[in-house]
Amino acid sequence: MRVRAYAPSHITGFFEICEHLDQRHMGSRGCGFTLQAGVTTEVTVEEGEGISVIINEANVEAPTTRSVVRRLASEYSVEVLSKIDVPIGCGFGASGAGALSTALALSDALSLNLSYNSAAEVAHVAEIENKTGLGDVIAQTHGGMIIRREPGSPGIGKVDKIPVRDVEINHVVLGEISTKDVLGDKRAKRQINLAGKIAIKELLKRPTIQNFMLLSKRFAMDTCLMSDVGVEIVEAVESCGGMASMAMLGEVIFAIGGYEALKEFGSVRTYKIGHYGARLL
Amino acid sequence: MRVRAYAPSHITGFFEICEHLDQRHMGSRGCGFTLQAGVTTEVTVEEGEGISVIINEANVEAPTTRSVVRRLASEYSVEVLSKIDVPIGCGFGASGAGALSTALALSDALSLNLSYNSAAEVAHVAEIENKTGLGDVIAQTHGGMIIRREPGSPGIGKVDKIPVRDVEINHVVLGEISTKDVLGDKRAKRQINLAGKIAIKELLKRPTIQNFMLLSKRFAMDTCLMSDVGVEIVEAVESCGGMASMAMLGEVIFAIGGYEALKEFGSVRTYKIGHYGARLL
Repeated sequence: MRVRAYAPSHITGFFEICEHLDQRHMGSRGCGFTLQAGVTTEVTVEEGEGISVIINEANVEAPTTRSVVRRLASEYSVEVLSKIDVPIGCGFGASGAGALSTALALSDALSLNLSYNSAAEVAHVAEIENKTGLGDVIAQTHGGMIIRREPGSPGIGKVDKIPVRDVEINHVVLGEISTKDVLGDKRAKRQINLAGKIAIKELLKRPTIQNFMLLSKRFAMDTCLMSDVGVEIVEAVESCGGMASMAMLGEVIFAIGGYEALKEFGSVRTYKIGHYGARLL
Repeated sequence: MRVRAYAPSHITGFFEICEHLDQRHMGSRGCGFTLQAGVTTEVTVEEGEGISVIINEANVEAPTTRSVVRRLASEYSVEVLSKIDVPIGCGFGASGAGALSTALALSDALSLNLSYNSAAEVAHVAEIENKTGLGDVIAQTHGGMIIRREPGSPGIGKVDKIPVRDVEINHVVLGEISTKDVLGDKRAKRQINLAGKIAIKELLKRPTIQNFMLLSKRFAMDTCLMSDVGVEIVEAVESCGGMASMAMLGEVIFAIGGYEALKEFGSVRTYKIGHYGARLL
C-alpha cells in the first residue's frame, strides 16, 4: 500500500515555550508563516516489520518521523520516502512537516480512519517527545501567516492568522541550530519566554505583516539568538528598505525585499508564503 | 482604494442548529466541504457614502454583504463587485463567501488591521443577523472537508477535518431553497436538530468521506428536506456505484461518481474539493 501526503514548511519569527505534562497541551505561543515549499512524503506499508526513512535519497535517523511510524504502524514494515525542498535543521519546521505528512499518509494507507486533527496530533506529540519543535505542526495544518494564540496540538491549540497575500520571502542560510540544545538551556528559555510573551501581546494589538517582521527582529535581538553576522544582514536589508529577521530556530535570515543586500552574504532563495495546510496527495 | 479577496463556496451535508444569544457563539454543528470554485470580490472604497453591490454584473440587494459593509466602512462610499462561479441561493454558501471576501478586502483596504478571525467574525455575525447561514463562514476560512464540532464564528467555533484528496464533486441544480424559511419553521428545525445530532456523532466515530456521504443522505431523507426528484436522483447515482446527497440548503444534488446518472436529470457541473480557505488576492 503506497500513499502520498504533503506538508508545508513553516518559519517561526518569535515564540514562547508553554510547558505542560500532557504533550498534547504542550507547545508554544508565537507567530510564523508557511511557505509554498515543504515536504512530500510517500509511505509504503507491507506485511512484516522494520522502519526505513529516506529523505532526499539518503537513509536518515529522522527520530520524529520514526516516532510517528512506531505509534501508527508498529505491526508493519514501513518505508518513508520524503522529498524536502527546504534546508533541514534550519528553522523551516522540516521535522514537523515530515512527521505530519507521514502521519496523514499512514492513517490513510492503513485505513485508520483518524480525523485530520487526530492524525496531526500524533505528529505534534512526536515533535514534543523528540524535542524537535513546539508549534510547527499546528501551523502546518493551517497554512498562511499563523498566530499561535494558545499552545497545543491541532484541535487543542488556538490559532488566528494575519491576512496575507502571496508575499515573497527571500532567505539566506548561514547554518543549523539544534532546537533541542536551545530548549535544554534554562537561561535561553527564560529570555525566550520573556521576549516571546511581549511580542505576541504586541502582535495581537496590530496583527499586520509589517508588525510581525518588526517584532520578530526585536525578539531575535532581545534573546541574543541572532549572531553578529545575522544582525549585519538584517541591517543591510533594512538599508535597502526591506525587513528581515531570523528563523526560529536556525541560522537563517528571512526577508521581505532586500534581495540585493542578501546576495552579499550567500546564496538567496525565494519562496512565496503558502495558504494550504498539510494534505493527502 | 481597491482590494480583492477570494472565499471558496461551501456545501453542507448535514447540520444541527445551535442557538445562542451572542451571535458570535450562534451557529451550527455539522459537516461539509469547500470547492475549488467560489466568490472573488473587489471592493472600491472612496470618500463619501453609499453602498452598491454588484454580483455577476447585476445590481443586487445582498443583505449579508451589505451588513458587513455597514459594520466596517459606514463612513465611506463602497462598491462591492463580486464574481460568483457557483449558483446563488442553492446551498453553496454564496452569501457567506460574498460576506467573508468583502470583510477581508475591506479590512485591508481601510487598514483596519483586523486579524483574519476578527474580519471573518464580521461575516459570520452578518450571516446570523440576516439568517442566510449558520456555519459556512467558519468552514470557508479553513477549506477542505470540515467537521464543525462546536458552533460559532472563526476563533470561537471548533473544527476538525476529514483528510481528503482533490475529489471531484458532480452536481445538478434543481432549484433554490430559502435558508431563512427553513430556519423559521419550528417543526423543520426540530427534525434537523434531531437528525443532525445523530449524524455528527456517527461521523466522529468514523470520519471518512464515504461515511460523510452516507450520513448526509440519511440526514436529507430523515428531515424530509429532499424532494421526491432528489431521492430519485440519489438512487440513480447509487445504482451506478456512486454516492449522492443534497446540499443544505438548496435543491442541489451533489455526488461522488454517478456522472452519467446525473446527466439524465439536468446539466451536470463538476468541481474538485478545495483545500484553501478565504484569502486576500
